[in-house]
Amino acid sequence: MNQIFITGAAGFIGSNLVDRLLADGKSVVGWDNFSTGQRKFLEGALKNSNFKLIEGDNLDLPALTKAMAGCDTVFHLAANADVRFGLEHPSKDLQQNTIATFNVLEAMRANGIKRIAFSSTGSVYGEAEKIPTPEDASFPVQTSLYAASKVAGEGMISSYCEGFKFEGCIFRFVSILGERYTHGHIFDFYKQLLEHPDRLKILGDGLQRKSYLYVQDCVSAMLHVMNLGTAKKAKHGVEIYNLGTDEYVQVNNSIGYICGALGLKPKLEYTGGSRGWVGDNPFIFLDTQKIRSTGWKTSLTIEQGIGRTLQWLQQNQWVYDSRSHT
Amino acid sequence: MNQIFITGAAGFIGSNLVDRLLADGKSVVGWDNFSTGQRKFLEGALKNSNFKLIEGDNLDLPALTKAMAGCDTVFHLAANADVRFGLEHPSKDLQQNTIATFNVLEAMRANGIKRIAFSSTGSVYGEAEKIPTPEDASFPVQTSLYAASKVAGEGMISSYCEGFKFEGCIFRFVSILGERYTHGHIFDFYKQLLEHPDRLKILGDGLQRKSYLYVQDCVSAMLHVMNLGTAKKAKHGVEIYNLGTDEYVQVNNSIGYICGALGLKPKLEYTGGSRGWVGDNPFIFLDTQKIRSTGWKTSLTIEQGIGRTLQWLQQNQWVYDSRSHT
Repeated sequence: MNQIFITGAAGFIGSNLVDRLLADGKSVVGWDNFSTGQRKFLEGALKNSNFKLIEGDNLDLPALTKAMAGCDTVFHLAANADVRFGLEHPSKDLQQNTIATFNVLEAMRANGIKRIAFSSTGSVYGEAEKIPTPEDASFPVQTSLYAASKVAGEGMISSYCEGFKFEGCIFRFVSILGERYTHGHIFDFYKQLLEHPDRLKILGDGLQRKSYLYVQDCVSAMLHVMNLGTAKKAKHGVEIYNLGTDEYVQVNNSIGYICGALGLKPKLEYTGGSRGWVGDNPFIFLDTQKIRSTGWKTSLTIEQGIGRTLQWLQQNQWVYDSRSHT
Repeated sequence: MNQIFITGAAGFIGSNLVDRLLADGKSVVGWDNFSTGQRKFLEGALKNSNFKLIEGDNLDLPALTKAMAGCDTVFHLAANADVRFGLEHPSKDLQQNTIATFNVLEAMRANGIKRIAFSSTGSVYGEAEKIPTPEDASFPVQTSLYAASKVAGEGMISSYCEGFKFEGCIFRFVSILGERYTHGHIFDFYKQLLEHPDRLKILGDGLQRKSYLYVQDCVSAMLHVMNLGTAKKAKHGVEIYNLGTDEYVQVNNSIGYICGALGLKPKLEYTGGSRGWVGDNPFIFLDTQKIRSTGWKTSLTIEQGIGRTLQWLQQNQWVYDSRSHT
């Protein structure tokens, strides 16, 4: 990896990856349409002469193709990551995830770039029967348009690996948290508690069990695997890894951590039901044996990750003004 | 099912389904863009007052939405079914399968239609480790753009079932053959033997093992399952069925049947290798226990199906002139 192209470079995970690669002395081309990305996240990177930012949209294939010129590796992180509101605008996942991923692959092909890392999601397992869920779980039934669009992306990537000798690493993430986190339950809860510290509305019954991974651990895992270069020798040229910790928490535990850290005792108001919204999966916990067997390990527990996230949100309340839709 | 909408109504499977439904006294709206469909296949149907043909393309969402008005069930069979040449035009599967399926779902939603049957493929299992392959096989790695686009379609359909309370039946077909067959190895072999009865070129080593299903059995299976109406009560509102026979044949066996029926002894020229082309799966054999447990069964063996197909091709050699690309 010498010249690295990152889609979604101004996003939560993307901008953390940019900073890490620059710290490692790599050259990076960042690509973002700033629909949800934040210029502020790239302030440091933009001072580095090894970083080039190109503003553009994955749906503009000619511009994307031009922007990728000279790169040898692509981290495709740009996505509509809005699982919860998928049903309100069904074409968004198709456009910004499925078609966008196709364009990334075509731009790579036009430039002779073969290596791709892709941010997929643990949601592709649907409501898995086997928990913790391994990479080779049963063929799942998709329950959200978001996960369906990620499965579509995975399928195209592996087909390009088989057909065009690409080398692909597909990472199925649990929810990621940490610095620059701008989306998800901690974001929502902290926002509520800023507005009314005495009460907290919780979607569902609070018993949903979820797994979270600290963003720096997520970045480390992707770089670790890409540096191993195992995809080249893998069957069909593609490696698939679950990314997560070996623990999970109940939403109620998470609330406990948050309120404890803030010194608050809000009245908890549950909307009820086992699912927070249609397509919400009440239990996500991935088997991460495969990635751990490569030598990678996490640096923070979920509780520590939540603490770090909260600390960052407290210091960066501007993110609430910059996002109209959480 | 009172008023039934069929995409790909002028195609191989679509036109056979149209005829069957009309024979059963149903009202049918046929939709086709005639990119590969044949007007001749609808000659009989067009004489029936219960049949209405609307020419249009799945990528034209307003026209599709208008055409579907008044229907209560959709059989979405239109697709780019060209597995072998996917790499020559990678956008074709995305457009004609993935995006087209999204449009079908959106047109249904606009019309308040909830029931959908979808022709997926056994190729979605990739190179399955478990053979015969059951519906809940391991999460597969896609090896063709065609199968990737069908997985994308399956994912969107099941998400609409979960999110919009659609009722979906997804059928994963083996290769289908029989009357109006215009695509596949028997089509190719017979064409070659018409041109030069003394020699036959075979892609791969002839040892590939495949399963085939007679088109009338395929149509019966889909109607049988749709009439059961089990999707409504199924988990997530979706039922997935493998469709195939409980046997498979080697390509070499198939050649034996064909040459025997034609009384020819061509010189066999193998291109070599276990795969006929990049992404070809050397062994496709589906576990059909689930569909058989509903009471459906096949009427013809693979050998009988091949015989029926060959007979139809002999009587309908015009199909070779009507198709530029086999």
